[in-house]
Amino acid sequence: MATKKSSRITEKTGMAPGTLLHIGYREIKDASVQVTQYNSDEIKRSEYKVKLDQIKYDFKDKDFVYWIHFSGIDIAAYENLGKQLDIHNLTLEDALNSHLRPKFEDLDHYSFLSLKLMIPNLEGYAFKSIPVNFILGENYVISFMDSHHPIMNSFLTRLENSTRRIRSKGVDYLFFALADTIVDNYFHLIENWNDKLDELEEFIAKENSELVPRKIENFKKQLMKARRSILPLKEAYDLLIQSESNLFLEENVKFFRDTQDHILFVIDQLDYLRDYLSNIRDTFQSEQNNQLNKTMKLLTLIATIFIPLTFLAGIYGMNFTNMPELEWKYGYFSLLTVMIIVAVGMLLYFKKKKWL
Amino acid sequence: MATKKSSRITEKTGMAPGTLLHIGYREIKDASVQVTQYNSDEIKRSEYKVKLDQIKYDFKDKDFVYWIHFSGIDIAAYENLGKQLDIHNLTLEDALNSHLRPKFEDLDHYSFLSLKLMIPNLEGYAFKSIPVNFILGENYVISFMDSHHPIMNSFLTRLENSTRRIRSKGVDYLFFALADTIVDNYFHLIENWNDKLDELEEFIAKENSELVPRKIENFKKQLMKARRSILPLKEAYDLLIQSESNLFLEENVKFFRDTQDHILFVIDQLDYLRDYLSNIRDTFQSEQNNQLNKTMKLLTLIATIFIPLTFLAGIYGMNFTNMPELEWKYGYFSLLTVMIIVAVGMLLYFKKKKWL
Amino acid sequence: MATKKSSRITEKTGMAPGTLLHIGYREIKDASVQVTQYNSDEIKRSEYKVKLDQIKYDFKDKDFVYWIHFSGIDIAAYENLGKQLDIHNLTLEDALNSHLRPKFEDLDHYSFLSLKLMIPNLEGYAFKSIPVNFILGENYVISFMDSHHPIMNSFLTRLENSTRRIRSKGVDYLFFALADTIVDNYFHLIENWNDKLDELEEFIAKENSELVPRKIENFKKQLMKARRSILPLKEAYDLLIQSESNLFLEENVKFFRDTQDHILFVIDQLDYLRDYLSNIRDTFQSEQNNQLNKTMKLLTLIATIFIPLTFLAGIYGMNFTNMPELEWKYGYFSLLTVMIIVAVGMLLYFKKKKWL
Amino acid sequence: MATKKSSRITEKTGMAPGTLLHIGYREIKDASVQVTQYNSDEIKRSEYKVKLDQIKYDFKDKDFVYWIHFSGIDIAAYENLGKQLDIHNLTLEDALNSHLRPKFEDLDHYSFLSLKLMIPNLEGYAFKSIPVNFILGENYVISFMDSHHPIMNSFLTRLENSTRRIRSKGVDYLFFALADTIVDNYFHLIENWNDKLDELEEFIAKENSELVPRKIENFKKQLMKARRSILPLKEAYDLLIQSESNLFLEENVKFFRDTQDHILFVIDQLDYLRDYLSNIRDTFQSEQNNQLNKTMKLLTLIATIFIPLTFLAGIYGMNFTNMPELEWKYGYFSLLTVMIIVAVGMLLYFKKKKWL
Amino acid sequence: MATKKSSRITEKTGMAPGTLLHIGYREIKDASVQVTQYNSDEIKRSEYKVKLDQIKYDFKDKDFVYWIHFSGIDIAAYENLGKQLDIHNLTLEDALNSHLRPKFEDLDHYSFLSLKLMIPNLEGYAFKSIPVNFILGENYVISFMDSHHPIMNSFLTRLENSTRRIRSKGVDYLFFALADTIVDNYFHLIENWNDKLDELEEFIAKENSELVPRKIENFKKQLMKARRSILPLKEAYDLLIQSESNLFLEENVKFFRDTQDHILFVIDQLDYLRDYLSNIRDTFQSEQNNQLNKTMKLLTLIATIFIPLTFLAGIYGMNFTNMPELEWKYGYFSLLTVMIIVAVGMLLYFKKKKWL
Repeated sequence: MATKKSSRITEKTGMAPGTLLHIGYREIKDASVQVTQYNSDEIKRSEYKVKLDQIKYDFKDKDFVYWIHFSGIDIAAYENLGKQLDIHNLTLEDALNSHLRPKFEDLDHYSFLSLKLMIPNLEGYAFKSIPVNFILGENYVISFMDSHHPIMNSFLTRLENSTRRIRSKGVDYLFFALADTIVDNYFHLIENWNDKLDELEEFIAKENSELVPRKIENFKKQLMKARRSILPLKEAYDLLIQSESNLFLEENVKFFRDTQDHILFVIDQLDYLRDYLSNIRDTFQSEQNNQLNKTMKLLTLIATIFIPLTFLAGIYGMNFTNMPELEWKYGYFSLLTVMIIVAVGMLLYFKKKKWL
Repeated sequence: MATKKSSRITEKTGMAPGTLLHIGYREIKDASVQVTQYNSDEIKRSEYKVKLDQIKYDFKDKDFVYWIHFSGIDIAAYENLGKQLDIHNLTLEDALNSHLRPKFEDLDHYSFLSLKLMIPNLEGYAFKSIPVNFILGENYVISFMDSHHPIMNSFLTRLENSTRRIRSKGVDYLFFALADTIVDNYFHLIENWNDKLDELEEFIAKENSELVPRKIENFKKQLMKARRSILPLKEAYDLLIQSESNLFLEENVKFFRDTQDHILFVIDQLDYLRDYLSNIRDTFQSEQNNQLNKTMKLLTLIATIFIPLTFLAGIYGMNFTNMPELEWKYGYFSLLTVMIIVAVGMLLYFKKKKWL
Repeated sequence: MATKKSSRITEKTGMAPGTLLHIGYREIKDASVQVTQYNSDEIKRSEYKVKLDQIKYDFKDKDFVYWIHFSGIDIAAYENLGKQLDIHNLTLEDALNSHLRPKFEDLDHYSFLSLKLMIPNLEGYAFKSIPVNFILGENYVISFMDSHHPIMNSFLTRLENSTRRIRSKGVDYLFFALADTIVDNYFHLIENWNDKLDELEEFIAKENSELVPRKIENFKKQLMKARRSILPLKEAYDLLIQSESNLFLEENVKFFRDTQDHILFVIDQLDYLRDYLSNIRDTFQSEQNNQLNKTMKLLTLIATIFIPLTFLAGIYGMNFTNMPELEWKYGYFSLLTVMIIVAVGMLLYFKKKKWL
Repeated sequence: MATKKSSRITEKTGMAPGTLLHIGYREIKDASVQVTQYNSDEIKRSEYKVKLDQIKYDFKDKDFVYWIHFSGIDIAAYENLGKQLDIHNLTLEDALNSHLRPKFEDLDHYSFLSLKLMIPNLEGYAFKSIPVNFILGENYVISFMDSHHPIMNSFLTRLENSTRRIRSKGVDYLFFALADTIVDNYFHLIENWNDKLDELEEFIAKENSELVPRKIENFKKQLMKARRSILPLKEAYDLLIQSESNLFLEENVKFFRDTQDHILFVIDQLDYLRDYLSNIRDTFQSEQNNQLNKTMKLLTLIATIFIPLTFLAGIYGMNFTNMPELEWKYGYFSLLTVMIIVAVGMLLYFKKKKWL
Repeated sequence: MATKKSSRITEKTGMAPGTLLHIGYREIKDASVQVTQYNSDEIKRSEYKVKLDQIKYDFKDKDFVYWIHFSGIDIAAYENLGKQLDIHNLTLEDALNSHLRPKFEDLDHYSFLSLKLMIPNLEGYAFKSIPVNFILGENYVISFMDSHHPIMNSFLTRLENSTRRIRSKGVDYLFFALADTIVDNYFHLIENWNDKLDELEEFIAKENSELVPRKIENFKKQLMKARRSILPLKEAYDLLIQSESNLFLEENVKFFRDTQDHILFVIDQLDYLRDYLSNIRDTFQSEQNNQLNKTMKLLTLIATIFIPLTFLAGIYGMNFTNMPELEWKYGYFSLLTVMIIVAVGMLLYFKKKKWL
């Protein structure tokens, strides 16, 4: 699998920049394109599943907001779109690149935003990361998602049923709402991890097992991965909010700022989780050391008490013919007494030294 | 509990932004609204406990400063307020979100400040965090607090009895004074932790117990939590002080700067406490290692001295028929002498090697 | 003591900002006020020890530079000063607060600088921290110091005897020279610590004792404390140097920059000391581990060699009636030979394995 | 080898800056110069292998883009180039310095970019670093590479066969495309390391061997080296993108920004790998400690159980004439019973204490 | 020695700023002053060894560049210089202060640069640090070096023999070339450390000795010291390059930028060395732990196998009269068989558990 991934990222080196090629380790699924157009009064939808490279895009009716959603990868369809809407090949290339760092770019007559949908795996620490890219044009939004995920359908349903703000607001609001949906989903991730952290703490309290470091390692690894996908998003939104493109209405900036707040909250949470895990790891380590200490103390105690006694017993187990003590009537009992005195003396000494 | 928390934060994903819904793991308590209006001459108060969603807000008399305090959550009441004062739904949503990161925002005709009241738990390291939000309008301040806490009542009492500055100054001074009251309360937290740190150091000095790492972990965890709530507040005040909104009088900026100083002081303290704890942890670890070393040295010493002696005793405990030494008249005493020489020799050797 | 400190810091929460109250755990000592006025030709001094709240401040003669020095705390005296010179209550409050973070502020007609005098305790790592605050007005400097320390008197002596620059330069130079005197004193602290570091290294080299971690901890603690007091001073001087207040003459900026250099030098030194201590701690830890390793190797060696031999001796110490070897004429000597061979073989094996 | 390297870097100290001398530990290979000129219609190539210092550079035909590629080092050739094109000696010196930090500089009539080609060694963590330098002039690009590597030839082939953008775009696009080719190659490095990381994790899972720390150390070392070469490149591109030189067309900035994205991605990856390795190291350490703990527990258990029993056996192996227990009919069996009771009792006690 | 150092740094506290006094722990050596004046045609030199405080400085001939080099300390000579050239006392004081942080300052009619010449000690990690200070005036450069070092003489020789750039360029080029000579010397330091690092790695590979932590500590200490002297130099050059003083010609900025590149390279190298050493330390630590683990395993193995066997032998060495097994004909051989079975069984068990 690793090899497969490798072969893909680097496949492009040696080709001209802007050559369309899907970079990533996803398989190309049966693609589809959904075209939705709406205003506050009506909404129309059409879905294409074949001949995606021959769709005609007509956004002339300025009364409508158009939303084109690509689900799955079809390079020909992308090229068709690019030609009709005059989207730069570099942008399409970015949209095809699953390894793309989240970013925002103002281009000639459109803006481009790339982020990741992250879906927690409820069974473990891992999550699935699906790249989602948006293009905002004069009166249209194009979204690219290289695998099918119900989140876009539920957004569509929301749009169809809505009698509210979203239908009456312009195209930049649609752009905001789509990206916001992706970012809001990060809360699921954080919550799953918060739950997992509680489980982990319980596990440690109950078991103190040797599996703990490995679990913490896996957890941290996932946090690192998520951080890598979210941190650049902060910068992206900084750029977006400062954007001077006239695609963004001044009055809608507050919505993007709201998403930015969510991103900051998620980053805070990730940092908190990471520090928390380091904290747990340190404590675990400390307690392991403590236990080792206790174990060693016990061993040392037993050795310290019995080794001399055993030596004494060894002495009188020797077979020398001339060992006067052996003949003494109370020799045995005297020795036992001596042994008890030695043992008790040692115990008292240790007690005094706060060793016990 | 964790699950409950989870279900709440994420409940909103998939809803339009600006949908009012209380996010948090607090229970909704019986809400109340206190309306206070004052100038330097008189002060009037009214409190509503029912039908909060039908209160009429009338701030026309520009001679007065108006303070509306919401205690507890009543969504209908919030919506009523929002509609009458033209507060954006996003702001009300923020005011309802207990997980909100502290922040400051200038909006069209009002400013919004969100922070946390933090109340130390005197029994342990933990603290209770209550979100408090403020809206500053042309001649009114609205405060939201989602549970009852006496701090606001004592502020009110202060206001009623005051013959001083606060009553003669404008609405931005009220805004400042309310927020400053919350921030000043952080000193209680810091002091509680300073006391706890002293206790912890005493505990370590006296007990050196295996509970120490866990205690430090818990302490650090709380510091991390507090830091998460206070650090963004610094940025918020930076924004507030640079704000160009004409709600803030130039002459009052020094008061906000004073609060900012307090925030910086608290952050310094938190960092100091954290570094201090790391320092303690390192030392504890070092001392544990030291003790392990000492234990091992003792064990090794005893083993090193007695194991060879015991071996010698074992030799002469064998039952071979032909063991000439056994027949020697002074064999036993010779062996004892040899043993003493070996033992003393070893001790001297160790002494010389600075091993003892 | 901790409790006492606590009760003070938090005493003010719930009072209006700008309420004068001395915050700190110092006792109020018999206060005094020294008024000095000078120009390059003459110098006049008067000292007040009683009725400090009735002193009249008259700075009308623009030919003179006035320096008012408050030693000890007398709130009424502060209020009197504030009223006559129109000093804002927030500033006086800051001057009374011993926990104040070092800072610089330009206010309406004066500037305020707060820093700490730090006096090393030559016996240990600790130091005494005395807050010193300065107000620079049109032709006067006011200094506040809440306990008596000879540093100010020796400054005064210098001023009286001086025929040099200080007497001919303006009021901002006095301000500079006073603050510089405090900052220069930090070098004593650094030097004391450098000496202590040398002592610590010698101690470690000679003793390698278990007291080392505790000593390092204490040392680090003091460094942390000092850093907390000096780092904000850097920011304060940054502000001061950029200040656009016309109280500071352009030509004197180089003096403040010189003080800033000293502050940076001290911060560098503190960071160096801290890293150095961490370095020592790591090495100490490493060497402890090394020693543990050596100890364990010795133990293992002895056990590995003698345990099997002792077992062999045990075998022939058994009392079975039918043990043919026991009857052999040279059984005993054969066994001894075997034992020697086993022991030497093991030693050689260990040697070969680089274990010895 | 180290010495050789040393002698070279420092050879220049004491010479005037701008003295041409090749600094580095590479051997000077047979140099060659390739001159390529093209526009969208035609492409011409010539290669020089001898008398490099007498080449005439003639870029007068503004219809063409000229690319001069130096492969290997020939100082006379550099000087010849510098004189004809008015390249500053400092620039040529930089181009000759293999230790140069990646950087971008705008100079009078040309721009200079220095970076490293990094070629992974598929067998290990190491990589080979080849400095590559570019000069962008009015209608020419000069590239310097001090050893032969096929990457430039394949670029040339691409250029010859291309009917696409690269041939119709200007000289800054060539500059971009060449540098981009080098940067794209970093992906090979990252992928090789990702594969190696997978191998390392497998190795740890299977072997948990003592070679692990050394492997991690070597890995980290290489990451550090790579980071040192790539981090300054980020700054270099920041400068390039902000460059106000009119050598760069506004419309082509997006291409450089694309390369910048790749650089950021690579830096992210390097940081991720480094943190990942630290994470693995911590876990490995933790598990080692765990295992030590387990080992010690087993040892202590065995010692704790058998040492007292052996002592008992020792007692009754003594040869005192008067030891009544020895005469008892069931003495032996009683003792065995006692021993079993002691052993079982201890085991139960340990079980209860959760020690087993 | 420490005390001596102390007494010097702090000697100045309590004196007016700008009081000339040599601060440092160097002894004052016989000072000398070298005056060199040159243009592209001729060069004149004179050296003063006595009456340094009466030298007349005459730079009126604007055709020449003047270089005054002070070697060793003579305060009267400094004062004489200061008076004639109108150098501020604060600057002279800085030039006399061996503890000065590297810095750059633009003053009224001259600029001041302070840095350290660092000379590696080829025998160890240490280096000698000699402060060097430069003043750049209208047509002169003054350099101060408080001990004699051949570097300045070789520079002078270079100047005398040069027919090249340096003689034809202006005074700022001289200033650059002198400082660059000092900075270039840092490469010797880095190379010496690179060699030492190689030696250290070899030493560890061969010996794995307990001296390693102490060696690493000493190494790091020196790196820290060097970093302290070089990091501020980066800031100094930032200021120099941005300087708007007309002492610096626009066309020569690229030379200073070149020196800046060298400084950045050295800082990169220092950071690399530091991280590398940390890496080595971690690995060493890990391997120590590994070895401890191995040692403990061996010990535990031997104990686990022999302790029970020795116990069995002890049993049958007891002298009970009624021990039936002792009478059995093949009792002894049966027991030996049992022992072998127990031992082999244990070994197999450990093998299965991957313990061996």
